[in-house]
Amino acid sequence: MPHFEKIEYKPIPVRQLLLEMKNTSELMIDLAYSAALFNDKELAEDVLELESRVDTLAYLLDMEIMVAARDSRDAESLIGVSTVAAATDKISDAAADIAAIVTRNIGVHPIVGEIFEKVEERLMKATVKDGSAIAGKELCALDLAARMGVDIIAIRRNKDWLLDPDETERVFPGDILITRGAPAGIKQFKDLAEGRLTQLEE
Amino acid sequence: MPHFEKIEYKPIPVRQLLLEMKNTSELMIDLAYSAALFNDKELAEDVLELESRVDTLAYLLDMEIMVAARDSRDAESLIGVSTVAAATDKISDAAADIAAIVTRNIGVHPIVGEIFEKVEERLMKATVKDGSAIAGKELCALDLAARMGVDIIAIRRNKDWLLDPDETERVFPGDILITRGAPAGIKQFKDLAEGRLTQLEE
Repeated sequence: MPHFEKIEYKPIPVRQLLLEMKNTSELMIDLAYSAALFNDKELAEDVLELESRVDTLAYLLDMEIMVAARDSRDAESLIGVSTVAAATDKISDAAADIAAIVTRNIGVHPIVGEIFEKVEERLMKATVKDGSAIAGKELCALDLAARMGVDIIAIRRNKDWLLDPDETERVFPGDILITRGAPAGIKQFKDLAEGRLTQLEE
Repeated sequence: MPHFEKIEYKPIPVRQLLLEMKNTSELMIDLAYSAALFNDKELAEDVLELESRVDTLAYLLDMEIMVAARDSRDAESLIGVSTVAAATDKISDAAADIAAIVTRNIGVHPIVGEIFEKVEERLMKATVKDGSAIAGKELCALDLAARMGVDIIAIRRNKDWLLDPDETERVFPGDILITRGAPAGIKQFKDLAEGRLTQLEE
């Protein structure tokens, strides 16, 4: 049984809580599908941890809204915020359901794998090789989103997953990267990371 | 009250049902956030219609799985598919909750708008102007995903929204486009669509 900590009210701006809930829940969907697609238990466990983080944020946000609303007009104005927060929580629950398929060894049916082959936006795993054109570079220097429509959503290094890495993060040989993007872009990026392509197109 | 049709079993491949559920639910999140961000009631209503479509797909998929599973081994193998389907249904419900903020005139709190300004992946609305470099072109010819990491998720033409347009779709002057992508890419695309930039970068 996990140990549950008491969640105490501490003042955190509502916008900060909602922003983290939104970003985390969207990232979780990609990560959960990646965990299922690559049958990666550690990544699936990270998704379950994020789900528990989103739950905590949801409690904090609900408390913050209660404190902020002093009259019925405030309540009317804040109900939209509360609804969006609840929706991000629902999305994160759905991602956790998908991740649990992996952690519970239910097994990913070939159909689940197949549907990813058919979608335009795909998730792909690439390993950074020694001498790769991207090794040692900061993500912002690679400018992947603008150049090839690719987003690195997770980096596995020394058995840990680094989720939604900062733009100042560097990639190193041995890193396993999960990328999201259009097929042409992520294929090109995989070739770069694995050394089959030696330079970024200008 | 909406009119509910009886959902009758008809054989549709499970992979086809699951693929449509997955793609629709992911698209719905972007559309629901767009509807909230741009306070667009028609778009929000389209999201609610998609939600009802996903519900129908969920029923059909459940029936299909029941018919397909002939023994306990089949059931074990298919439970993962059923779980992924249920998760996409949950995601589509969450999107509908967000859309309902708009259709019920709850009003989008400034905080909800603000959090979109801070996220890396942004949603943007652009109107195609006469003489724009993209007017009359097919989406596949524009190759937006590879060129600038931009995806057109909806086109509004003659008061109707065309959701998740095909690559063979053309854009015309007067079309309102909702795009998703990295900030640099969607800004460049908006400039192109609205005629402030006259040609696609090579």
